Amino acid sequence: MNNYQPVFALTRGQTVESIHFGAITVCDNQGNLLWHYGNPDTVTFLRSTAKPFQALPFVEAGGLEHFGLTARETALICASHSGTDEHVAVASAIQRKAGVTEDDLLCGTHPPYHQETAERLEAAGEEPTPNRHNCSGKHSGMLAFARMLGTPTADYVNPAHPVQQRILRTFAEMCGLPPEAVALGTDGCSAPNFAVPLRNAAQAYARLCDPSALPEKRAAACRKITHAMTSYPEMVGGPGRFDTALMRVGGGKILSKGGAEGYQGIGLLPGALGENSPALGIAFKISDGDARKKVRSAVALEILRQLGALSDVQMQTLASFGPRFPIYNWRKLQVGEGYPVFAVRDGE
Amino acid sequence: MNNYQPVFALTRGQTVESIHFGAITVCDNQGNLLWHYGNPDTVTFLRSTAKPFQALPFVEAGGLEHFGLTARETALICASHSGTDEHVAVASAIQRKAGVTEDDLLCGTHPPYHQETAERLEAAGEEPTPNRHNCSGKHSGMLAFARMLGTPTADYVNPAHPVQQRILRTFAEMCGLPPEAVALGTDGCSAPNFAVPLRNAAQAYARLCDPSALPEKRAAACRKITHAMTSYPEMVGGPGRFDTALMRVGGGKILSKGGAEGYQGIGLLPGALGENSPALGIAFKISDGDARKKVRSAVALEILRQLGALSDVQMQTLASFGPRFPIYNWRKLQVGEGYPVFAVRDGE
Repeated sequence: MNNYQPVFALTRGQTVESIHFGAITVCDNQGNLLWHYGNPDTVTFLRSTAKPFQALPFVEAGGLEHFGLTARETALICASHSGTDEHVAVASAIQRKAGVTEDDLLCGTHPPYHQETAERLEAAGEEPTPNRHNCSGKHSGMLAFARMLGTPTADYVNPAHPVQQRILRTFAEMCGLPPEAVALGTDGCSAPNFAVPLRNAAQAYARLCDPSALPEKRAAACRKITHAMTSYPEMVGGPGRFDTALMRVGGGKILSKGGAEGYQGIGLLPGALGENSPALGIAFKISDGDARKKVRSAVALEILRQLGALSDVQMQTLASFGPRFPIYNWRKLQVGEGYPVFAVRDGE
Repeated sequence: MNNYQPVFALTRGQTVESIHFGAITVCDNQGNLLWHYGNPDTVTFLRSTAKPFQALPFVEAGGLEHFGLTARETALICASHSGTDEHVAVASAIQRKAGVTEDDLLCGTHPPYHQETAERLEAAGEEPTPNRHNCSGKHSGMLAFARMLGTPTADYVNPAHPVQQRILRTFAEMCGLPPEAVALGTDGCSAPNFAVPLRNAAQAYARLCDPSALPEKRAAACRKITHAMTSYPEMVGGPGRFDTALMRVGGGKILSKGGAEGYQGIGLLPGALGENSPALGIAFKISDGDARKKVRSAVALEILRQLGALSDVQMQTLASFGPRFPIYNWRKLQVGEGYPVFAVRDGE
């Protein structure tokens, strides 16, 4: 269990009050471990960080062309969206094209992440429907894939369903693992989710961002996904969300997808670190799940800063997410500070 | 920074997904370290776990008799209360007796912890006033002490104020430390707060629960405080709060006071572990601050279970707080479990 090391400290006065632990890996698309902190073999769930790979077999099978789905809709299939009206409209469009309805979604419901939307619904006495769920795009994609394969849509989140079997196989391949080496769990949205070592998840992100060594159809599908996500970052998250802000600043060179319980995947596309720089995949976990909701983005920015992936100007644009932040009390006096406490070190 | 060890795991399927780290100490009233996990010399802030000691010099100086304060009001002075109308009424009563008003409080404001009260205020468009703040009892006590000492009430949270100086000295004595060994920080409520090694905080709790070796006036004040808190546990917390529930079940033998950022103090009074058992103090910290708001109570119950301080029936009564809990997803399917992963070991 001691896979994790201190990654983030919070002070009060001159004294450290709290410490978050984590583990970080940076890999290339061949699986070489370039940098790490904590144990790179830490096995844990990617949660929503797996979404690009859950979309991949559908895209690879020609699903976008089959249903005439746009890049914007593709981005939503890879999203943990904020449940705004715009997100709901895009989810509905995917469902219309795929010949399914919101009622077919098995993700459950939760209030929209977007605060104003949540408050508006509540004020109107309107219950959130499944399309407001952050995973409604992913589920719409799974349903579309089921329709395309001519398999039942009723039980599409069953791990034995052909859609989930294809997803597992594709995800495992991207990680450089046999499918049986991937541990399964049920996600918050009831779809199967995957636990693999951090280094394998990092490799999968590097491959997604430079798929040139993969079979042609797989490579083309990877490019469609990274293009869709980086072109429509507001579909992948929403207003004020970290993944959205980081991909906007990244200008097509940075892929970012967070997951629940403090997981984060980031892909640096070729050239992101300067001319001819290779693609890199970053996977890390805040061990406690970051219920504070401030540590993961701060750690992500510190990794990118240390790798040289973001300029001072870019860091400034993202400063509300970290890497340091002040801590205020109920009278809005600054009483402390949060800051990263790791140095990304040379590989194993 | 590696003072902490894994204390609590959360699974998904058969795989551990997240880990919380912590450090735990159990001491007697002479400062002997009886049990520990992680580094007992971990220095961090007690936050609201310090409240009984912040009340202590006031009680010791005869403040209760001076103002005619009841045990119920004393309990509120040691509280992180839920801001119900009842709590506000008791805070107001203390203020009336002390000749101060709610306007004198420097704690700031936050919505009441008690959900129904918070919702009722919001529906009525009523802004929470300082008396709803969980620390309004503590601040009322500090103001009363300032009045009693004939010192200004305007700046009573200043670390140099005589009230705060007396509190610091008394707290340090209870910890077996010189005042200059206590690190200061500003609390959420703007009062000074204290960071000391966990073992010293545990000793302070043991002394509070068995003050027989202390000077007579100090000992009597300690007994008034433990009696007040264990007699009026609903004043110390509120409906559904852990400290309240644990002290109710403890039947006068268990003192419990949580603090922000995952800190917890527990005192076992003489006889709590069986006839003639000595008083024990327990202090622990969830390193990440437990923003999940479920880990601290689960860890507390596991410590008490391992120490034999709670019977099976008592554990059953408290089962909604841990030590294990199921994890559900958005469709209310159980997808995992949380459980403690430490064994309290013999001393150093």
